[in-house]
Amino acid sequence: MTEYLAGINSPEDLRKLPVSALSGLASEIRSALIACVTQTGGHMGSNLGFVECAIALHYVFNTPEDKLIFDVSHQSYAHKMLTGRKRAYLDSAHYGEFSGFTNPGESEFDIFRAGHTSQAVSLACGMAKARDLLGLRHNVIAVLGDGSLSGGEAFEGLDNAAVVGSNLIVVFNDNEMSIAPNSGGIYDGLAELRRTNGESSNNLFRAMGLDYRYVEAGNDVQALVNVFREVKDIDHPIVVHIHTLKGKGLAWAEEHKEEAHSVHAQSWHAPEGETFQSLTRDLLARKMAADPSVVAVNAGAPGGVGLTPEFRAACGKQFVDVGIAEQHGVAFVSGLARGGAKPVFLVMATFLQRSFDQLIQELGLNRCPATILVFGAGFYDIDATHAGTTDIVTTGNVPGLTCLAPATKEEYLRMLEWSIDQRERPVVIRVPELLISAGSCGFDPERPSAWHVVRKGRQLAILSIGATIDLACQAADLFRERDSVEATVVEALNYSSFDEPLLDQLAKSHDLVVTLEPGILCGGFGEKVARYYGKTHVRVNCYGGKKEFLDRVPADEFLKIYHFTPEDIVRDAEEMARGE
Amino acid sequence: MTEYLAGINSPEDLRKLPVSALSGLASEIRSALIACVTQTGGHMGSNLGFVECAIALHYVFNTPEDKLIFDVSHQSYAHKMLTGRKRAYLDSAHYGEFSGFTNPGESEFDIFRAGHTSQAVSLACGMAKARDLLGLRHNVIAVLGDGSLSGGEAFEGLDNAAVVGSNLIVVFNDNEMSIAPNSGGIYDGLAELRRTNGESSNNLFRAMGLDYRYVEAGNDVQALVNVFREVKDIDHPIVVHIHTLKGKGLAWAEEHKEEAHSVHAQSWHAPEGETFQSLTRDLLARKMAADPSVVAVNAGAPGGVGLTPEFRAACGKQFVDVGIAEQHGVAFVSGLARGGAKPVFLVMATFLQRSFDQLIQELGLNRCPATILVFGAGFYDIDATHAGTTDIVTTGNVPGLTCLAPATKEEYLRMLEWSIDQRERPVVIRVPELLISAGSCGFDPERPSAWHVVRKGRQLAILSIGATIDLACQAADLFRERDSVEATVVEALNYSSFDEPLLDQLAKSHDLVVTLEPGILCGGFGEKVARYYGKTHVRVNCYGGKKEFLDRVPADEFLKIYHFTPEDIVRDAEEMARGE
Repeated sequence: MTEYLAGINSPEDLRKLPVSALSGLASEIRSALIACVTQTGGHMGSNLGFVECAIALHYVFNTPEDKLIFDVSHQSYAHKMLTGRKRAYLDSAHYGEFSGFTNPGESEFDIFRAGHTSQAVSLACGMAKARDLLGLRHNVIAVLGDGSLSGGEAFEGLDNAAVVGSNLIVVFNDNEMSIAPNSGGIYDGLAELRRTNGESSNNLFRAMGLDYRYVEAGNDVQALVNVFREVKDIDHPIVVHIHTLKGKGLAWAEEHKEEAHSVHAQSWHAPEGETFQSLTRDLLARKMAADPSVVAVNAGAPGGVGLTPEFRAACGKQFVDVGIAEQHGVAFVSGLARGGAKPVFLVMATFLQRSFDQLIQELGLNRCPATILVFGAGFYDIDATHAGTTDIVTTGNVPGLTCLAPATKEEYLRMLEWSIDQRERPVVIRVPELLISAGSCGFDPERPSAWHVVRKGRQLAILSIGATIDLACQAADLFRERDSVEATVVEALNYSSFDEPLLDQLAKSHDLVVTLEPGILCGGFGEKVARYYGKTHVRVNCYGGKKEFLDRVPADEFLKIYHFTPEDIVRDAEEMARGE
Repeated sequence: MTEYLAGINSPEDLRKLPVSALSGLASEIRSALIACVTQTGGHMGSNLGFVECAIALHYVFNTPEDKLIFDVSHQSYAHKMLTGRKRAYLDSAHYGEFSGFTNPGESEFDIFRAGHTSQAVSLACGMAKARDLLGLRHNVIAVLGDGSLSGGEAFEGLDNAAVVGSNLIVVFNDNEMSIAPNSGGIYDGLAELRRTNGESSNNLFRAMGLDYRYVEAGNDVQALVNVFREVKDIDHPIVVHIHTLKGKGLAWAEEHKEEAHSVHAQSWHAPEGETFQSLTRDLLARKMAADPSVVAVNAGAPGGVGLTPEFRAACGKQFVDVGIAEQHGVAFVSGLARGGAKPVFLVMATFLQRSFDQLIQELGLNRCPATILVFGAGFYDIDATHAGTTDIVTTGNVPGLTCLAPATKEEYLRMLEWSIDQRERPVVIRVPELLISAGSCGFDPERPSAWHVVRKGRQLAILSIGATIDLACQAADLFRERDSVEATVVEALNYSSFDEPLLDQLAKSHDLVVTLEPGILCGGFGEKVARYYGKTHVRVNCYGGKKEFLDRVPADEFLKIYHFTPEDIVRDAEEMARGE
């Protein structure tokens, strides 16, 4: 099985093979990837489709002197296997050593850390320009997928690539799929190019001023070697459009492209019963049935937000996937709301960063009554590129937005229904991960800025965001046990404004306020409370994340690192009470 | 002169005119605009070129039932004159009544407030979809300029427009210019379409799946009326590409398109002598001459950042205008830095919002040693769409960025030179507006996180950002006068991190810390100081802007509204000292 792969520890080893050996090597790599990813989980489909291209690129180009820049970089597994990291895919004991994305900290063959889409061409433009300014000579190659092409940054990059005026090769990996099926006007044009073997005059890339080559046999390593040899050292920008098969070599993955885009580890079990995703689907379905203007919108990443293929199909015209285009997503729902519809934009926290300006301008300034549901916010065991810890910064500081943070199922459902029905304001709802049912609801639609007092006490008040309410109660229990004082516990249900009457009331009978925030503290919620009380005798202690990039840290580790434990909270409170 | 215009108070009046009268009306409007804008200042070139189109749109379409959505909306003056607001352009006494952009608060003919670019098609997609869901029938028309087309959001919008499946008309107003000359691969394609009367098979819009019409005579109102009549009530999306002349009717504006894009009021005088813009040019020129890898980058808005046509020409290959594409801009300089060059991205604070995700991912996470110079940050007499008050949120909360806020010329120059030369980290420099020369420099390149103690005192410490150092000193003077105590004054030269030793030192001899911040408080600098001191006895009072949209508020009004006066600061400090 590892006739060739065993001997390859770097692209230099690869280049010693005859071309005739490369398809055998591709089979070995593909088999290893299937065996590995089936067990460990990870990005399956795009990696299986990209094996031959990764081999051909390293075979023809003189990496790492020639610079290979991956878009998203979730398709870089074969690249990693060829650049000294194959043990991660051959021996599950080593799997965790390397991330699922490119990372210069791992290898000189990785030029950037990447995880969001559509940035590779822009980065490559910069690398090419730097090369030219420094008088160097090497190839700069960007690998861009057809899913990423719907992101505006990719278009900005291609538009600028066309005027680079020197060597720049864009390998456009067209596997006819984004994470989910592609949506948008460009995809008919790509299909026409595939149908006509690249001959159609209707050519987006040429229309943008770029030279162009088409390779139908994108999983034929010999064909790829040939075309890369032809374009190597080219003196101007060119797009090499290759047609590949997502999931190639694994029948199930070829058939079920969306499910096989990213697969779970074998040991993983789907959460049973209700989730916030299933609750959202159920509520949306009910609202849609009652009102044809209720419409769910997603930007090319339906998985994390629970928009299953079945649900999307059932929604019919009341669901729109705008492609990987978060800027458009927020502007689109702003237009929907202004036009009288009731849009709900479901988005992962990490990707909402792309819409910051649109949240300010199109949504906030225009006060369009759209609902934004933010999933994946908080501390997760995930790559630094996909951290969901900045959403409070991204939304809570924008004028005009009402930002809600439910803790329980009951609060979430009432907030969502209220938000869809109301016509006055844009609303952001931070969806918790952990489903808690309280049997009651602290959210009052008549007073959307009001917080919910869960326990009334004195001396110490704990303000919690979302699911940290559990920790707040535990800390209060411990405080009672150790200090014989009943602490006040408050759910801060709205993090875009203060419940000022409540805060002023607390100041009368409390000396210490603690804030609990599942996100980074900088620019977040706790700091605002600290500012509010800054002029008073009330001392404030904020718990939350540091301003740092953390890579694949287990959720319970986060709690330790950031002192999210009842013991830490109570000990700190006692110290502060003693004036230390 | 006002044979027709005098009788027009709404599009209904316009529609009563025979088509033959429209070119006369256009002349009247154009003359009025020239007379007005020459005096008052405003957007000249694009408005003069769009007069006939505005007339034809309102003549043919049934506004406001048909929805007309302007991109940027700086070209909406003729539209405003036709929709009940002509007095602003005929009588300078009324000029200030209306903003220079569309605003639903002014008129039912304005659908959105807009000011940043490239959003109109996305908003129109939403309006069209809402119409369809609600079972309504009206036209939705987006007006997009060729300059805006380089922004990724426009591409995302067009890609999605192509699959709207019902009426959506994009009027593509091609005047061959952005604010500055266009740059990017798409512009050769547009030129080819103009040369071939729209017949070239190389057609970006068709390649994106959109129907297409070309109108060479974009300033011939009869031709426009004809084409709009043909596309009115169309059952699918279409792009109507019209070729107009920027600055039409004013010889100087036709000749000097960049200068005439936006002109100053007659009463305005250019600042004499040095400005931060001129200092930046001089330093960049010197660094570029010494090192061919130093490169200045701008995203289609060179005016506010001082990149004059002469300077750009002199830079040669060491200047790149990426078009209106801020996402690409930040990714591009990240690539340049990673490739070994020394890039400086000059950008207006308000537009940097577009790059939030790229600041986090491409720049911060990758620690690319690029320099970002932020101009126009702070409180200005400007439209709410262009407020520069969010830059500290946009940059100061991003892990990995070193964010500097110089107060003086000397500090700025030392910071900029240090930043260009160093290779360790991305640096953001917030360029002050008001040039202060202190003759000395508080910034120490060996300690880029250190703050500068300007005066040592006790009891009260005032921490200032940028040019608020003057106010800090005035407040300290007043405090000495009234309370006989010497206050400490500190320039917080770095707003991305704390000078912790200094803060801890201050806590020993000060009870009160005041922060002065020319930006919104939410998510800003002062809140972080409040959090830092939250656990201690030190009280903190933060001065800065509220989280709100303010429209064209004079700078000195801001200072009053937000209590940026020595009297306010000292009075508040005295009250706090008394424990009130």
